[in-house]
Amino acid sequence: MSLSLPVLAWGRRYDRATLLSDMLAALIVTLMLIPQSLAYALLAGLPPEVGLYASVAPLILYAIFGTSRVLAVGPVAVVSLMTAAAIGEHAVAGSQAYWAMAITLAFMSGAMLLLMGVLRLGFLANFLSHPVISGFISASGLLIAASQIKTLMGVKAEGHNFIDLIAALVGQIQNIHGLTLSVGVLATGFLFWVRRGLKPLLLRVGLNARVADAIAKAGPVAAIALTTLLTWAFQWQTQGLKIVGSVPQGLPPLTGPLWDMALWKALAVPALLLSVVGFVESVSVGQTLAAKRRQRIEPDQELVALGASNLSAAFTGGFPVTGGFARSVVNFDAGAQTPAAGVFTAIGITLASLLLTPALYYLPQATLAATIIVAVLSLVDLSILKKTWAYSKTDFMAVLATLIATLTVGVEMGLVIGVGLSLALFLFRTSRPHIAEVGLVPGTEHFRNIKRHQVLVSPRVLSLRVDESLYFANARALEDRVNDAVAINPHLEHVVLQCSAINDIDASALESLEAIENRLADSGLALHLSEVKGPVMDRLKDTHFLHDFRGHVFLTHYQAIQALSPEIIH
Amino acid sequence: MSLSLPVLAWGRRYDRATLLSDMLAALIVTLMLIPQSLAYALLAGLPPEVGLYASVAPLILYAIFGTSRVLAVGPVAVVSLMTAAAIGEHAVAGSQAYWAMAITLAFMSGAMLLLMGVLRLGFLANFLSHPVISGFISASGLLIAASQIKTLMGVKAEGHNFIDLIAALVGQIQNIHGLTLSVGVLATGFLFWVRRGLKPLLLRVGLNARVADAIAKAGPVAAIALTTLLTWAFQWQTQGLKIVGSVPQGLPPLTGPLWDMALWKALAVPALLLSVVGFVESVSVGQTLAAKRRQRIEPDQELVALGASNLSAAFTGGFPVTGGFARSVVNFDAGAQTPAAGVFTAIGITLASLLLTPALYYLPQATLAATIIVAVLSLVDLSILKKTWAYSKTDFMAVLATLIATLTVGVEMGLVIGVGLSLALFLFRTSRPHIAEVGLVPGTEHFRNIKRHQVLVSPRVLSLRVDESLYFANARALEDRVNDAVAINPHLEHVVLQCSAINDIDASALESLEAIENRLADSGLALHLSEVKGPVMDRLKDTHFLHDFRGHVFLTHYQAIQALSPEIIH
Repeated sequence: MSLSLPVLAWGRRYDRATLLSDMLAALIVTLMLIPQSLAYALLAGLPPEVGLYASVAPLILYAIFGTSRVLAVGPVAVVSLMTAAAIGEHAVAGSQAYWAMAITLAFMSGAMLLLMGVLRLGFLANFLSHPVISGFISASGLLIAASQIKTLMGVKAEGHNFIDLIAALVGQIQNIHGLTLSVGVLATGFLFWVRRGLKPLLLRVGLNARVADAIAKAGPVAAIALTTLLTWAFQWQTQGLKIVGSVPQGLPPLTGPLWDMALWKALAVPALLLSVVGFVESVSVGQTLAAKRRQRIEPDQELVALGASNLSAAFTGGFPVTGGFARSVVNFDAGAQTPAAGVFTAIGITLASLLLTPALYYLPQATLAATIIVAVLSLVDLSILKKTWAYSKTDFMAVLATLIATLTVGVEMGLVIGVGLSLALFLFRTSRPHIAEVGLVPGTEHFRNIKRHQVLVSPRVLSLRVDESLYFANARALEDRVNDAVAINPHLEHVVLQCSAINDIDASALESLEAIENRLADSGLALHLSEVKGPVMDRLKDTHFLHDFRGHVFLTHYQAIQALSPEIIH
Repeated sequence: MSLSLPVLAWGRRYDRATLLSDMLAALIVTLMLIPQSLAYALLAGLPPEVGLYASVAPLILYAIFGTSRVLAVGPVAVVSLMTAAAIGEHAVAGSQAYWAMAITLAFMSGAMLLLMGVLRLGFLANFLSHPVISGFISASGLLIAASQIKTLMGVKAEGHNFIDLIAALVGQIQNIHGLTLSVGVLATGFLFWVRRGLKPLLLRVGLNARVADAIAKAGPVAAIALTTLLTWAFQWQTQGLKIVGSVPQGLPPLTGPLWDMALWKALAVPALLLSVVGFVESVSVGQTLAAKRRQRIEPDQELVALGASNLSAAFTGGFPVTGGFARSVVNFDAGAQTPAAGVFTAIGITLASLLLTPALYYLPQATLAATIIVAVLSLVDLSILKKTWAYSKTDFMAVLATLIATLTVGVEMGLVIGVGLSLALFLFRTSRPHIAEVGLVPGTEHFRNIKRHQVLVSPRVLSLRVDESLYFANARALEDRVNDAVAINPHLEHVVLQCSAINDIDASALESLEAIENRLADSGLALHLSEVKGPVMDRLKDTHFLHDFRGHVFLTHYQAIQALSPEIIH
């Protein structure tokens, strides 16, 4: 049963030093999370306060059930984008119905994650390959950045994909609101500079690394404070600058999902995709950070923890959440020791939503858009295209297809196409196995490909090494190869299959082996096997095939050659 | 280019002896094909003469383009069932619209097969595993037999699946038409007896084997002639026995597909499934028979030939066709030497549809149903369940799921579920690779699993053999295994991966290997590789991973152990 409580392990050894580390980390993460929560709620098409609500209960639930010591859970860019894509078809962004659907989506996602965790289905995430994830995340980053440009420009522009969106933006150039664009562009420039230029500068003027780092991390807060103050001072909202406006003060509300079967059916696939993407993102962040401190995370338990987090989001007015990359790294760097840091962060966000929301009234939406753009562009990494092109054309095709499909068709189809294609390419590769004719390396007991090495072979014995497990999709390829080899080689008496790379033989392949043996016997040839692996032999030994087998099964290929063509061994 | 003309090869060497063999075979196949064509047309929901039309042009086209010397093309049971399933939703069986749709389906199937042949996609058929095909064919046989029982009983009964159908039949027991049932049951019994009991009897009374065989093959014709004569003599149709009635006399008509996009869209998936099933059935019959005479068939060229056959069926009033098992075996046994036998059969069927159709007026439908039942029950082979249960539980699951889904949901979904499940099970297996810790077999240079053999190991060196290609779905399993092994073994200094069974390493797995190496280096351990295959090494050698690799790549695992722990080698 996977419903364990990791909190019991670290909670028992909790002391004052750990408490101080955790509280300091929580303070820094809280400062980072406030603008991010607001921004990602807006990205998802929700009122800004929903972002704060989604950053309270989920953090506490993760602290209880999660296995990562430093993962920071909450609204993240890609999942927010997927939320908008899923609900956008069914309700108008910003409406009460839309919010209720976001809550329902969080509930469904939580239930799915929890169920997958209990059923120990964490391995399913392995079917999202690195190339597909990279392509998907990069494309999502570009999509999100493009979706925020309209807010920077102060115009309205909608598009169902990247190209539509860019076209709509270009069509709106004459409507650009100058003041909004100025605020947005300056905020974006400032945030980029904070990321790249501020820390080196602070180090050069003599600050120590830790302080410089903390100041650089506070950049987004500074941008928000500054633009809010300026807007308040000059009352820019009267000149058409869009501001966040009044954000309700108070604790997260008690809510629940809509019990609407038709809606559930419509949201089932999006909820599943969003759950898997969130899980993969969260686990890969968690594993990267855990490895640095020689800790381990348990994927199946992570499913349970993320499931609980999302369920709690659904009951406290939130929307789908997962472990975020940037904030977890900040949490780690700031010295968080245990998930208690998450609980302290939740307390910080609660205080913010009780006390701080009036101060957000004059916050320009363009500043939030700038925050998002700077955050998501760091997700875009197109070097994977170059890397996979050099290493593997099939992996390259998977990245490219995922990237293009996500940008042109949409996030959900992009992911489905990427996963489908990477599986299809894998199946295609395995259906055309590499089969090498091998010969003896002189003076050794080893056999290598006759095309690559100077080796000894006998004209009477054909040694074939099959470099793939035999299963239905490739069994016929072996039949063809043996048939062809026998047809062109009149002196042949024995065919020996070196099975060192055959990890499995399924029922279809077993029939093919029987067919090969029968056909060889009809032409007066014998089939032998060598180096059959233990697990494969275990299953073969009770079959008709092996029972009626006329050839030998040799422990090593060298023994086979000793027995069948001793003349080539000096 | 795959549009070759095999006819040129055999046509040039055609002589009188071959002509006589082919004509004799054609005569026997024609006698067999007449009742089968009528019966399968009725099974597909079409007028009986359509079966004759579908047995003329397709045979000639196959003779020109096909690579099998003895394959007999025409209407077959499973494809007829799939035709009925595909069109049944869109038109009423027996209507003109229904026939037009069957013609359209043949056209679409022909175009798809031709396209697949030109694109050399014949290998796709390999993804239908033996267990899935067996399960599907057996279930189809049961479905077809059940669908014919109503004709034997002389009642009306419809059902969308096997269970509905049986329930409907049970509900009709009180309406059984006694005369029809008597004719049907006697015909069925007679046909079974002809199959099982007649030939041994004829041999016992002293006939030679060939003549006995020919007489036994004529059984269905005898059943048809006898019941037709009796019906005519006693005018049983006046007592409610359903007869075939007037079948139009004449040549196949000129027809063409409906150019209706909505219909094409609806029929696209059924047409594809039907094409693939027809192709697989045809190719496996063709290969079995070709192997007996040391001939070869070319799957891609077979696609072209079956495509041309189906297109010709669409233009001559037919419906989807493929190579049939029983009639091809009869053709082979009767001594057909070349595809010219198919042309002579086509001439025979043409003569029959010109001259013989009035004689079919009094043919009882129950006799045709009996013919179908006896033919399809020979397709049902449930021993595959027992066989796969003993050999491989995953293959067993694939058979069982295909069988149950085909019987309960329908032929199309049954096939889709079977293929999907067998692929999913394959992916699942490969995602959990067998990883063995290996040690040196004393006195040899070979390494085997420490759990299965008495072998030598060093506490400082961990040798792992990964029994699977590394790709995205299983790369993490290797990471976990290495992490776990390192955690429990404090004396470890080296980890050596024996790569003899690794046939491919994709980009995701390469990242995992980098991660493993970095983590081992952080704990002061070194990672090495041994026995990396040529094709894998070719791709690795230009990567950052191998460029920055701190360990060694050994040609053999023995060399690795010689270098790293020479103390265990005496």
